[in-house]
Amino acid sequence: MQTTSSNPLVSSSDVNGTAVYGADGSEIGHIDHLMIDKKSGNVAYAVMGFGGFLGMGEDHHPVPWNALRYDISRDGFVTDISAKTLQGAPERNDDWHRDRSWEERTFDHYGVPYYWL
Amino acid sequence: MQTTSSNPLVSSSDVNGTAVYGADGSEIGHIDHLMIDKKSGNVAYAVMGFGGFLGMGEDHHPVPWNALRYDISRDGFVTDISAKTLQGAPERNDDWHRDRSWEERTFDHYGVPYYWL
Repeated sequence: MQTTSSNPLVSSSDVNGTAVYGADGSEIGHIDHLMIDKKSGNVAYAVMGFGGFLGMGEDHHPVPWNALRYDISRDGFVTDISAKTLQGAPERNDDWHRDRSWEERTFDHYGVPYYWL
Repeated sequence: MQTTSSNPLVSSSDVNGTAVYGADGSEIGHIDHLMIDKKSGNVAYAVMGFGGFLGMGEDHHPVPWNALRYDISRDGFVTDISAKTLQGAPERNDDWHRDRSWEERTFDHYGVPYYWL
């Protein structure tokens, strides 16, 4: 990320690659890209790359943006999502980002508010 | 933009270059990139490229994201911002994105709600 820690905004061109830290402070992955709700302008998902972390069978995994919080001291994002929670997340198909039923199950799974309300 | 009109989400990797149309239906510019508020996850600004449109002396101009709305039939964004409004927008320096005073004046100028409330 190209910003300094005092900058509250980040460019959509720069956010990709930003580190994501787990509750224990270790780096668990990074942001591959964000998915933005065109209507509301809210960021809906961070699609995270894990690089084989936790034995995930896939490289990328969408997690609700609300499950991440920005840590100014690290200039990165922190999440309380555990390996168990990640591995138990609802399975998805290629149409996950336009499947409201999958979205509801996913946000319920992570225990965060729906981005579309 | 790589999405179909039925897709409510857009990737931060794909939004750049999306067309922006004026109230009269003509294409007035495009989205160069978005500026995202790290804390709230809201998109704060669309930094638009105008390619010399309206005699603007600069290539890029940040406009409040709330001043754009998504038009599903065009798969692009529409804005009611006029040439006069654009040209009268508060001047900015390189630190505009961390200058709350400039941000307040800008959002007041465009008549849209602050993204940080």
